[in-house]
Amino acid sequence: MSRETKSEAGRRGFLRKGAGLGSAMLGAALGTNARAEPLQVAPWSKTPGEPALWHPYGQPSIFEKDVVRRSRGAAAMPGANSSMTPLQNLYGIITPSGLVFERHHAGIPQIDPQQHRLAVHGLVARPTIFTMDDLVRLPSVSRIHFLECSGNTGREWKGPGTASLQLSHGLLSCCEWTGVPLATVLEEVGIQPEGAWILAEGADSAAMSRSIPLSKALDDALLVYAQNGERLRPEHGYPLRLFLPGFEGNMSVKWLRRLKIGSAPFMTREETSKYTDSLPDGTARQFTFLMETKSVITFPAPDFRLKEKGFYEISGLAWTGRGRIKRVDVSIDGGRSWSVAQLQEPVLDRALTRFCLPWHWDGAATVLQSRAIDETGFVQPQARQLVDARGFESNYHFNAIQSWKVATDGVVTNVQV
Amino acid sequence: MSRETKSEAGRRGFLRKGAGLGSAMLGAALGTNARAEPLQVAPWSKTPGEPALWHPYGQPSIFEKDVVRRSRGAAAMPGANSSMTPLQNLYGIITPSGLVFERHHAGIPQIDPQQHRLAVHGLVARPTIFTMDDLVRLPSVSRIHFLECSGNTGREWKGPGTASLQLSHGLLSCCEWTGVPLATVLEEVGIQPEGAWILAEGADSAAMSRSIPLSKALDDALLVYAQNGERLRPEHGYPLRLFLPGFEGNMSVKWLRRLKIGSAPFMTREETSKYTDSLPDGTARQFTFLMETKSVITFPAPDFRLKEKGFYEISGLAWTGRGRIKRVDVSIDGGRSWSVAQLQEPVLDRALTRFCLPWHWDGAATVLQSRAIDETGFVQPQARQLVDARGFESNYHFNAIQSWKVATDGVVTNVQV
Repeated sequence: MSRETKSEAGRRGFLRKGAGLGSAMLGAALGTNARAEPLQVAPWSKTPGEPALWHPYGQPSIFEKDVVRRSRGAAAMPGANSSMTPLQNLYGIITPSGLVFERHHAGIPQIDPQQHRLAVHGLVARPTIFTMDDLVRLPSVSRIHFLECSGNTGREWKGPGTASLQLSHGLLSCCEWTGVPLATVLEEVGIQPEGAWILAEGADSAAMSRSIPLSKALDDALLVYAQNGERLRPEHGYPLRLFLPGFEGNMSVKWLRRLKIGSAPFMTREETSKYTDSLPDGTARQFTFLMETKSVITFPAPDFRLKEKGFYEISGLAWTGRGRIKRVDVSIDGGRSWSVAQLQEPVLDRALTRFCLPWHWDGAATVLQSRAIDETGFVQPQARQLVDARGFESNYHFNAIQSWKVATDGVVTNVQV
Repeated sequence: MSRETKSEAGRRGFLRKGAGLGSAMLGAALGTNARAEPLQVAPWSKTPGEPALWHPYGQPSIFEKDVVRRSRGAAAMPGANSSMTPLQNLYGIITPSGLVFERHHAGIPQIDPQQHRLAVHGLVARPTIFTMDDLVRLPSVSRIHFLECSGNTGREWKGPGTASLQLSHGLLSCCEWTGVPLATVLEEVGIQPEGAWILAEGADSAAMSRSIPLSKALDDALLVYAQNGERLRPEHGYPLRLFLPGFEGNMSVKWLRRLKIGSAPFMTREETSKYTDSLPDGTARQFTFLMETKSVITFPAPDFRLKEKGFYEISGLAWTGRGRIKRVDVSIDGGRSWSVAQLQEPVLDRALTRFCLPWHWDGAATVLQSRAIDETGFVQPQARQLVDARGFESNYHFNAIQSWKVATDGVVTNVQV
């Protein structure tokens, strides 16, 4: 019996026998046992439907038209904006590419892949300009990894900042990424002994630029050209982006056009004016690359209202830039007690991990929380711990436990406890 | 050092040192060492691009407009048709939902999920009608599995049948599927002791119907409502489909409206007029549910022409309805000798598995083949073995080794050797 099958049996057992709820629990969840409606033959069953290739490239159902990326509003500068993934509407761990969040510093360039070039120069033996054909011809790897903006949940530093999961946690997605290990290309151009950092520059009109430690570039960085099986979408870096597993999203520079090897960080605009973490004493943490251990309950969440008491499956996502998620605890009483959630297989290195826990809601007001622990032993902190350590001045790297309050009327709201 | 990292190092080592090719190999593959062009500032780098939310639901680049599903032509009956996945353009193991193949018996019904119902009746204690809300509220699982039409590569029974990988092998896709274990629902309705088979019926106007063994239904069948993170697409069964991991695709009945439990197979039109395997003696194999071990090289394939000799990475897909792929062998000399390909992690139960092998093409004509072996020891057969056993009369379950001939001019064609 496989691990998945065992866990299913466990959950079915819970439905029938668990927690003293008795065998009526599933019936109560379904609300169907007393349903007397006959099965109708629907109008769409009476006439042939649209043919195959109605859409040579398929689209979602018109009934799913509200499942889209959303934004918190206009940005200060043209093209500098973001959009959020509707995590409340998603299942499993893969984010469909059409719903992967966006963060642009100067909008989305429309790049002709035949004209695009990647220059690798600086402290190298053989400065080289690569075409896309050059890169795609090289040995590639595909990996499922999360991507999170360091500003995700940034509105939560000063207390509950947003009234929806999409707007609080939606700068987060997970895809299968395919590309060439950056190490392959660096080995070919030949890094000089004093080379220690790499400037990565995008072809957008902001020339979005970050400094990448050479150690990361040689370890697991990818030059990515495909996402979820197909070539990158324009808003995610088409035709080429850097991808740094586990690091803050903006470092995975999109529309990548240039890699310059140097001996020190380049102190670009985007790593001085932004992407540092202000501390209470007026100083700043710089080069906080790693995305720390984090989790959030995606159902129930403020985007839903529970219509009745009874059975629900609490579901959520956990992730860590340090490797694999080891355990997720869920509290249904505001943190007084915790239960170990079930992790959905496969649990992958620096990928979103889906967790779930069966729950019988008795109709009383309560607070739901999740707490992730990764394979290094790192435990997702409470908001209070995080603010005690870092104050209120940062916009980035807020990874605290998220609390959702369920009121007696089933309304779910964002709270901090 | 992880398994992936080791393998990358191995492939880089091959590039530099392997097979007596010397360190000039990657340079030769790139064709760039002598390239003297300066890095230009492209027009799209000079002005801000389109804002975030240009597409609230994102779309591929206009430069990828030819990466679409394609069909072999019109079908005999309205709405009875198929379209194929462009495997030659895909990477990794996930098929984006917009490119997942189609096979319809009466077109694509446009179903309102609020109006859709699933009836479960027959030899049960408690006949029940479920709404979508009922089903989505139940405990769910997500799994990455391939889906293959039993007619995939059916044109190859009588020799090389098609001139493109998309048209020969494109009735094949792999997604993350989310749904409720069918066992959960069957446990709730209570199967009577004589129940042994289930009729699954779709809400399309063909009322597409198949008989499912109860053992499979209780083992790992899913009532699926989401695919690659979002709700099913209309052409893939929105809002609800059956999913039977490892079984022929048509049994995973789309637009599922009815499950009737009986004591014997129902002998529906779609399992008598179709989906049986004609044998040379005039009899037929019936209920050949399992999709056997199979593989295909996706690059190089007839959809590409090799422009020059030198380094290439042979890449392909392997899969088996019996569990996990254990090994894939690749021949670059028409089956005289075989090398063990590298398998891309993760290797999942009844999912596509990506394999690759570095290759130096010396410019001579040759034949490329791949041969998959699964964890049960099943070895993908040669076409000759398959035809010897089953004759030429079947349209289904052709899983032979595929041969691609590379001519001296780099043109790749479909051959049988």
